[in-house]
Amino acid sequence: MKTDHNKNIETLKQLIDSKDFIPNLSVDCTIFGFHDGILKVLLLKYHDLDLYSLPGGFVFLDEDLRDAAARVLFERTHLKDIFLEQFHTFGRMSRTENNVHKTLIQNKGLDVTENHWILQRFITVGYCSLIDFSLANTFPDAFNETCAWFEVDKLPQMAFDHDRIIRSGLEFLRDNIDTQVAASNLLPEKFTMKDLQSLYETILGETFRRNNFQRKILSMNMLERLEKLYDGSANKAPYLYKFIEKYHSKSKPYTFLEEDFI
Amino acid sequence: MKTDHNKNIETLKQLIDSKDFIPNLSVDCTIFGFHDGILKVLLLKYHDLDLYSLPGGFVFLDEDLRDAAARVLFERTHLKDIFLEQFHTFGRMSRTENNVHKTLIQNKGLDVTENHWILQRFITVGYCSLIDFSLANTFPDAFNETCAWFEVDKLPQMAFDHDRIIRSGLEFLRDNIDTQVAASNLLPEKFTMKDLQSLYETILGETFRRNNFQRKILSMNMLERLEKLYDGSANKAPYLYKFIEKYHSKSKPYTFLEEDFI
Repeated sequence: MKTDHNKNIETLKQLIDSKDFIPNLSVDCTIFGFHDGILKVLLLKYHDLDLYSLPGGFVFLDEDLRDAAARVLFERTHLKDIFLEQFHTFGRMSRTENNVHKTLIQNKGLDVTENHWILQRFITVGYCSLIDFSLANTFPDAFNETCAWFEVDKLPQMAFDHDRIIRSGLEFLRDNIDTQVAASNLLPEKFTMKDLQSLYETILGETFRRNNFQRKILSMNMLERLEKLYDGSANKAPYLYKFIEKYHSKSKPYTFLEEDFI
Repeated sequence: MKTDHNKNIETLKQLIDSKDFIPNLSVDCTIFGFHDGILKVLLLKYHDLDLYSLPGGFVFLDEDLRDAAARVLFERTHLKDIFLEQFHTFGRMSRTENNVHKTLIQNKGLDVTENHWILQRFITVGYCSLIDFSLANTFPDAFNETCAWFEVDKLPQMAFDHDRIIRSGLEFLRDNIDTQVAASNLLPEKFTMKDLQSLYETILGETFRRNNFQRKILSMNMLERLEKLYDGSANKAPYLYKFIEKYHSKSKPYTFLEEDFI
């Protein structure tokens, strides 16, 4: 435990002293998790504070912006090749006014000068991802003591404007539900209409009549109807469906890597 | 002319020497203009180069990101309170590899050190606006000799990845055409279905059957039907429509300011 503590302080020192990042810019990921009819979002809890934040990080001077978001996602979940989409850049001066970084650094017994880059105003680019939270492990970083899933309508106290970013990410997810669901690999390759409806209902937070949902989703020509799911009672067996090729994710299915990435 | 030249060099020097901007970050505006069935985009032509760019600029350290985009729009058009929406942030390393800034600075007989902030990699936040180009004047900045409207399918040679940004902005405009048209104040308060169809067809670059367009647009419940447009031949007089309140732009109608803003 003590060793962890010292290692965290060392990592923090390295971060603070680094000159490898673009100043004033960060990325934040709203990683939504779906499983068994529940929609959650992945949050980090800061050390020694009753305050949570989205998985986020800085962008290396020689790193593509999107790669920075994918790196953050990987660092917190060890998942690679996940469908990840940028949805908005948050750039109000006021968003970083309550300087959380300063408190965190001081709590660790460290100190930085007033005009240090880490205490300055940050503009953050928001990315959105949708995964199966039962399949993902989570890994806190040096700033944080836990990394865990929270139901989207039961959020704890959030740092910065991260509650606003989550609302905005959720709105993006809902506005783009067809693309997001098709590309997220959340369902098995073949699934029933009931599976798909349950996923839509959970993400949208509303319920649909079975017939209405089926008619609407089929009218979008995203699905291919396959054989029936044989379960012994042939009459009631539901059809299986799959997404037609062009709506499939360009991403590979989840890749889990064990080795340390950082 | 000579005085202009000297003034431009002075402005450039001030820009280069400034420490008031966020490093590595810019905003670029795809300002689309509609008039009489033609869709154009506003472009700047660099001095002494056959190369064009979007109206863009840097973000002051103490300026909200959105205000920076509105400032750029104002500086190039002297228009205020225009509906302006962020659509994407472009963050590939490669986007600023062909360092146009260096060429421009050297062409003016100025010089900067290799690691100067203006020669570094830039991440840019794209904003989109839709206005009536017949109503807007345009004003080049110190980098540029002209600021003028180009048809979206006849673009000249663009700097950086600005052709990609225009394509992306156009896609955003088309994907969000209902909101964008309703909020853009392009039509008079009361308009005919034909006026609206013409606007949609121009932006989307396709034609619709009159009945199909009318049925689809009315099914969206965005319009309120008003009295007929009386033109003497009552039988054929078309109905007038207006957007219902909640789809109206939050922006005021165009405000033209004469005084210099910068």
